[in-house]
Amino acid sequence: MAPATPFLLTPGPLTTTDETKRAMLRDWGSRDTDFIALNKWVRDRLVALAGGQGTHVAVPLQGSGTFVVEAMLGTFVPHAAKLLILVNGAYGRRMVQMCKYYGRAHVIYETAEDVPPDPAEVDARLEKDAAISHVSVVHCETTSGILNPVADIAAVVANRGRRLLIDAMSAFGALPMDAHEVQFDALAASSNKCIEGVPGMGFVIAREAALVECEGNAASLSLDLHDQWRAMERNGQWRFTPPTHVIAAFARALEQHEAEGGVAGRGARYRRNCNVLIDGLRALGFETLLPDRLQAPIIVTVLMPADPRFVFERFYDRLREKGYVIYPGKLTVANTFRIGCIGAIGESEMRGALAAIQATLGEFGVAHCGPAIPVRAAGE
Amino acid sequence: MAPATPFLLTPGPLTTTDETKRAMLRDWGSRDTDFIALNKWVRDRLVALAGGQGTHVAVPLQGSGTFVVEAMLGTFVPHAAKLLILVNGAYGRRMVQMCKYYGRAHVIYETAEDVPPDPAEVDARLEKDAAISHVSVVHCETTSGILNPVADIAAVVANRGRRLLIDAMSAFGALPMDAHEVQFDALAASSNKCIEGVPGMGFVIAREAALVECEGNAASLSLDLHDQWRAMERNGQWRFTPPTHVIAAFARALEQHEAEGGVAGRGARYRRNCNVLIDGLRALGFETLLPDRLQAPIIVTVLMPADPRFVFERFYDRLREKGYVIYPGKLTVANTFRIGCIGAIGESEMRGALAAIQATLGEFGVAHCGPAIPVRAAGE
Repeated sequence: MAPATPFLLTPGPLTTTDETKRAMLRDWGSRDTDFIALNKWVRDRLVALAGGQGTHVAVPLQGSGTFVVEAMLGTFVPHAAKLLILVNGAYGRRMVQMCKYYGRAHVIYETAEDVPPDPAEVDARLEKDAAISHVSVVHCETTSGILNPVADIAAVVANRGRRLLIDAMSAFGALPMDAHEVQFDALAASSNKCIEGVPGMGFVIAREAALVECEGNAASLSLDLHDQWRAMERNGQWRFTPPTHVIAAFARALEQHEAEGGVAGRGARYRRNCNVLIDGLRALGFETLLPDRLQAPIIVTVLMPADPRFVFERFYDRLREKGYVIYPGKLTVANTFRIGCIGAIGESEMRGALAAIQATLGEFGVAHCGPAIPVRAAGE
Repeated sequence: MAPATPFLLTPGPLTTTDETKRAMLRDWGSRDTDFIALNKWVRDRLVALAGGQGTHVAVPLQGSGTFVVEAMLGTFVPHAAKLLILVNGAYGRRMVQMCKYYGRAHVIYETAEDVPPDPAEVDARLEKDAAISHVSVVHCETTSGILNPVADIAAVVANRGRRLLIDAMSAFGALPMDAHEVQFDALAASSNKCIEGVPGMGFVIAREAALVECEGNAASLSLDLHDQWRAMERNGQWRFTPPTHVIAAFARALEQHEAEGGVAGRGARYRRNCNVLIDGLRALGFETLLPDRLQAPIIVTVLMPADPRFVFERFYDRLREKGYVIYPGKLTVANTFRIGCIGAIGESEMRGALAAIQATLGEFGVAHCGPAIPVRAAGE
């Protein structure tokens, strides 16, 4: 009796609206005037969402979020530069891996997956090492769902005259980001997170004066955002075949985002989803990894119950059958699973998921959902 | 009175069937069992299309065709290798550009855009330069629509003990390719050419014994096909968020490809489309760039009429209004435009396009469509 299409309570791909999906029922010519106009509208709208009109530009790129983060590092970090990478999860570590592929000089400031980077420590490292020219940070680390203090870090980086690159993948569109308050050279995100498009493209929002300097940096033709930008400025077209249907869906998703009240409206819904979810989970005895003050309203990491009758694979399967797809954990520090709050879902879907969880616990005979080890978060 | 959705007589994005597009009306969880099974089916089917069961593997990748060609070169050409690139159009030249980004040693054998590479000349160059370890060739150069003699080149390359990489972008699925007759290390193509999916992913079909050796070659995490393959073999999942809707459409398109009779059936329809188109164009006085023996049934390059009343931009716009999108030329050697024969279109659409062309010529008062300069093809 599994619903054909369950709700995706994951960090993406997400549940999207039917309206967004129906935008894919047309074939667009990639060099046709209509499509060129659609792209311009999307790019302008993205810049506006970051408050970057007149100073910033949006450059879309084919592929997943990782492709555009790699393209951002490859394009914005010159060969002779040195990058300080702030790591507290898989996406920070992935940036380290990218630098190893490219052979770019980099140093790491790593904190535990439930600990945000300390801006004062970033400042101290920048003071100590004058060779560090760039800093990269993940806005919301989807590994844990933690909200990193991007604005405070940006202030420190700007104060030291260094450049900031932000992986805003799971934050952009739901958490405020004003390009004039938060100084960055580039910010990367994708179609398939808080804008609620379908997966297949990402984008950077870049300070134009910084992007102009990036010619010749990239180590890959496909991932060269400077070249992509120059070509788009020239004729409004993508250099290489664009994912036309994905872009059409993204445009439709951006319209719905605007209709919901933009970043404020979208963020408010996710915050309600997150609160309903966390309150419901705690009422069932679950514990979350993060204290509320560090929890971004994007995805919640839940500690695995100690009761041996709780077997995650069975729990996952039963929830799937009841119409809700959750997500395994990605943490190294604790045994966890994750439930997303983003996508075209609201309070009723969150309450539906909680009811499915409660029913499944009943089936398993699990009465207590507390974790094996008392969690740091609980004590804070 | 322009139809909302014109037929795309282009090298892609193409016109796809409604059935293919409707496959995108569902949101898939990227780590869900159904989606993992769908991916396995797609990968197995691709290997079967190349006759590579038991020896070859298919590795899909996010992005456009260019992304997967770049990934192929980056993954399969080791740092110490030397690549001979056969160039007779923009896609061969693009491989040269990729090698420059990567700093890989390469030499070029270039022929004019209407001249295929000569296997004997390839043989001579391989004999002369023992350092050349790899050869790359474009099966159908979409720049002109020329069919390059891939099988003969493969024989020469294999005979000299070198490795072959094929950009089969606009050929795979419509022109025969048997991995046991044509020896190659890898062949790259995309969702959005002769399989008639929507754009957003590509794939390589690789000789497994060759792919195994490729660990550590790639200069990019996102474009590392060895890493992508290893990860998929491990858990059936994509390393990074897959374009789920694009993949679902691709699977549906592969089913329809099979129902049409696979490569033979698809190729036969395109050949009919191409013949109807060329016969009709010639009846109107147009000349094609290529002699028929070099013409792949994919896209036809047409020489621009000399009559000053024929203005391409107006011609393009009027055809667009009548429901047919054609394509500008990409040649350096001659002033041309292009009309594609691929996608979910048949003889009736080709005849419709010809009628629209004839009507437009009438509107313009163009009676003679001959080019300014007599074409080489006409003399052959």
